[in-house]
Amino acid sequence: MKGNEKKSVKIIPLGGLEQIGMNITAIEYDDTIIVIDCGLAFPEDEMLGIDLVIPDVTYLKENADKVKGLVVTHGHEDHIGAIPYIENEINMPIYCTKLTMGLIENKLREHNNINNVRRKVVSHGQIINLGCLRIEFIRTNHSIVDAAALAIYTPEGIIIHTGDFKVDFTPVFGEAIDLPRFGELGKKGVLALMADSTNAERPGYTQSEKTVGKTFDNLFADNRDHRIIIATFASNVDRVQQIINSAYKYGRKVVVEGRSMVNIIKTATELGYISIPDNTLIEIDQIRNYPDEQIVLITTGSQGENMAALSRIAASIHNKITIKPGDVVIFSSNPIPGNEKAVFKVINELEMKGAHVIFQDTHVSGHACQEELKLMYALTKPKYAIPVHGEYRHLKRHAELAVEMGVDKDNVKILSTGDVLEIGEDVFKVTDKVVAQGIMVDGLGVGDVGNIVLRDRQHLSQNGLMIVVVTLEQGSNMLLAGPDIVSRGFVYVRESETLIDECREVALAAIEYCQDKGITDWGKIKSTIRDSLGEFLWKKTKRNPMILPIISEV
Amino acid sequence: MKGNEKKSVKIIPLGGLEQIGMNITAIEYDDTIIVIDCGLAFPEDEMLGIDLVIPDVTYLKENADKVKGLVVTHGHEDHIGAIPYIENEINMPIYCTKLTMGLIENKLREHNNINNVRRKVVSHGQIINLGCLRIEFIRTNHSIVDAAALAIYTPEGIIIHTGDFKVDFTPVFGEAIDLPRFGELGKKGVLALMADSTNAERPGYTQSEKTVGKTFDNLFADNRDHRIIIATFASNVDRVQQIINSAYKYGRKVVVEGRSMVNIIKTATELGYISIPDNTLIEIDQIRNYPDEQIVLITTGSQGENMAALSRIAASIHNKITIKPGDVVIFSSNPIPGNEKAVFKVINELEMKGAHVIFQDTHVSGHACQEELKLMYALTKPKYAIPVHGEYRHLKRHAELAVEMGVDKDNVKILSTGDVLEIGEDVFKVTDKVVAQGIMVDGLGVGDVGNIVLRDRQHLSQNGLMIVVVTLEQGSNMLLAGPDIVSRGFVYVRESETLIDECREVALAAIEYCQDKGITDWGKIKSTIRDSLGEFLWKKTKRNPMILPIISEV
Repeated sequence: MKGNEKKSVKIIPLGGLEQIGMNITAIEYDDTIIVIDCGLAFPEDEMLGIDLVIPDVTYLKENADKVKGLVVTHGHEDHIGAIPYIENEINMPIYCTKLTMGLIENKLREHNNINNVRRKVVSHGQIINLGCLRIEFIRTNHSIVDAAALAIYTPEGIIIHTGDFKVDFTPVFGEAIDLPRFGELGKKGVLALMADSTNAERPGYTQSEKTVGKTFDNLFADNRDHRIIIATFASNVDRVQQIINSAYKYGRKVVVEGRSMVNIIKTATELGYISIPDNTLIEIDQIRNYPDEQIVLITTGSQGENMAALSRIAASIHNKITIKPGDVVIFSSNPIPGNEKAVFKVINELEMKGAHVIFQDTHVSGHACQEELKLMYALTKPKYAIPVHGEYRHLKRHAELAVEMGVDKDNVKILSTGDVLEIGEDVFKVTDKVVAQGIMVDGLGVGDVGNIVLRDRQHLSQNGLMIVVVTLEQGSNMLLAGPDIVSRGFVYVRESETLIDECREVALAAIEYCQDKGITDWGKIKSTIRDSLGEFLWKKTKRNPMILPIISEV
Repeated sequence: MKGNEKKSVKIIPLGGLEQIGMNITAIEYDDTIIVIDCGLAFPEDEMLGIDLVIPDVTYLKENADKVKGLVVTHGHEDHIGAIPYIENEINMPIYCTKLTMGLIENKLREHNNINNVRRKVVSHGQIINLGCLRIEFIRTNHSIVDAAALAIYTPEGIIIHTGDFKVDFTPVFGEAIDLPRFGELGKKGVLALMADSTNAERPGYTQSEKTVGKTFDNLFADNRDHRIIIATFASNVDRVQQIINSAYKYGRKVVVEGRSMVNIIKTATELGYISIPDNTLIEIDQIRNYPDEQIVLITTGSQGENMAALSRIAASIHNKITIKPGDVVIFSSNPIPGNEKAVFKVINELEMKGAHVIFQDTHVSGHACQEELKLMYALTKPKYAIPVHGEYRHLKRHAELAVEMGVDKDNVKILSTGDVLEIGEDVFKVTDKVVAQGIMVDGLGVGDVGNIVLRDRQHLSQNGLMIVVVTLEQGSNMLLAGPDIVSRGFVYVRESETLIDECREVALAAIEYCQDKGITDWGKIKSTIRDSLGEFLWKKTKRNPMILPIISEV
């Protein structure tokens, strides 16, 4: 069936490598593109005021007729969060397992576009056909249930994408990762393995989720006389299940607090992924009907997020829950890098109010450590390795591990976002680069905040601004009013009147200089004011506010 | 000698408890106040544009005649950094060990006030008299050499302040902590122990600084063919010494890069705390005369600080050093909470350029872990315990540990900044609260940025601003010019012209409304514009820029 021109498989990451978090990858062959995952990223520190970042899918839009569908590995934000935005641009049918679909549907409903999107729930073990590609969903374990790896059958061979995974021989819900199937595919021959790199720096194995359940049982036994509050990731349904199990065992009622926690538990319960014994769940207002030692509160805020329930409780601005001395607060989570300070702030606040905070050894990761990665390589024996999901340092450790596991050094590649990797029996090469970057979302604006706006926000945030207002007479350019000075975020004006007076004089001198020199061009007048005032303020204060001369003409 | 009124000892933390970093404590008895340490803090995330924070010493100024001197435990920024500022307000003679004094003198020289400050170098074991208090300097170990604990002899008993300390039986420079002296004081009877809480959450012992030297030797042996770059804390003189030792042993020249690193090594060398073999240190420009495998570069930037040498090297904006594939970069440090993301960013950048980065097991802490703290309690057997130096969670663990070590539960107190703790044989009570908070330094301004300015910076950083300029006729309030719209940090104006046009119309409508209603008060006109424009923008964009209506009159 091959023509003269040899067709090849292309793998194109459209986010999520340099920009951790935003997972989306295109796999292309001939007239077919399938998209794996469609996540969002949270803004970097320098992206002031930005709410979230979504991938630029220009490449998909330009090839919209080829895009046969979106296959999703699991229901975490960094894999599904951009779906409502991207579906507005390219209408792709979505394929994924049941809980993942439930969470995606919640998002589509929030964005009012659920009716426009075709969706099909797939079971583990099932194979779907999209154009000339076939995709098999393989059961894995992760920190959210119903995760899947994907085996993509291409004319050049089988590509396995693990999604985010770990090996849990004793999962809380459902079965262990389908290791035999990975082995079977390995025997058939696997062209390429794209595996999760998150924990590639960590030796050994990630522990089973069930170990956390045992920890909860011990903590519940040790703290029978106290109210217990547990913060964890809303999406970790198994974790929530285990808290409920311990609560039931120790005769406590369970209260759920935090919008995302309530939503996910609702969806997971409806779909049968959580089972809650009767009379265990109570509403937050019912807390008062039970003594403290019969209550466990499950809440959001395990990352110290400003507006999350636990942070509000810690800061005494939650309207229903007040910390009492003796309360036991458990962080069932590790801080994601960057969140440490915020988490410790919340811990300090809780302890100041008399709570006893437990935050060590109360969490296990959802990602494979080195030995699990080695196991995946040992089972699948891929010809090529393409590490995915992680910061560069993780991808690099993963690449080294792949070589240790027998993959030829030249057959391992760390891709950059937008790279077009051509892959086949005889080819493994980046042959092109497509547009692929983050698009910033701020409020309702998608992509209307760019680098200039961010640079201005940065400047304003560090030094504030000073506005110089001048009214000139039309034609003559005679000074009719001003210069008036308005400043914000610079100095406390009431205590700096002299400085402001001096600024007015400096601005006036600049205007008079322009008049003397016969300068009438507004741009030049403005830059003269800006320069002389900037120099004056730097000398006087070693600060550099944004200076905005504004001229109006009457 | 006692009068009718019983005198008591007062301990007053003036910073550094809630605000970690800013260590300064007053000890007062009768006509004498001594000040222990005088540090600065680095700004919290929400203190936009602030350079550093220094303590408010209003209490000391109000009691200036009592202040007999400043005793300093060691030369870290959080213990000495505010000295040049505070000495401008209260002229206190300074007492400390030699290296600490060298570092303080560098600071005073930078601020041009060295000639105004009396200074006296004290040796370990020496006792000084300040008013009615006597202070003994006791040798300790820490991540900077020449650290001292203080025994303060008061009429009510001996107070021991450990400063920052660890127990290092095999220090790199000088001797181990003077444990026998702590034991001797314990036998005499210690009234109160104020000990370092930083590592109170960590079980076991902190390892000896020498273990890092062995690690360096191993890394140098393993990487004979590569250039080695090591980032560490500039002030860790022993660490630098050990790098120099390994370099000498393996025949490498040493280059030092980063201003603070160069300065501290210079001071430490002059004062005899570092010894560098001849022909080992070379200038950065000489690097080109040696092959890579004969070079080791010691640099600042181990915390991922934006402008530090290593960060500039990683970002390819350093003018002398370029990363080459094969370079080995060692982070001899742990990220301080809050710096993780910045550190990982630098690591990723280095690895992308082909460097091999090593950042695990290449550092030991300078602070006592639980067993060392227990040892300190076992030796000194204090009646009272006042945990110092740490976040609240550390202070609390330390308090629990003190009780475990036999201190009566009622005799342990976690103080807040400004608390006045009266302490004596029969009293241990917070009896007063004095003004004590952080004063923000921004450029040359000390204390001229307050909460309003910060709130404005916060607002501007998240949403930018929109200025509405209107010129009205004097008397009639007739609209002569405008409304003109200027925005910064809000949307990219060239691509949002329609929105800006709509804003102009909304502002115009607001002005016309005021004219129709006969509203002439400028404040009311402005708030009408602000409100209607704010409402319009929120509806349209779900954003909330600062809106600044400016009226000028002709």
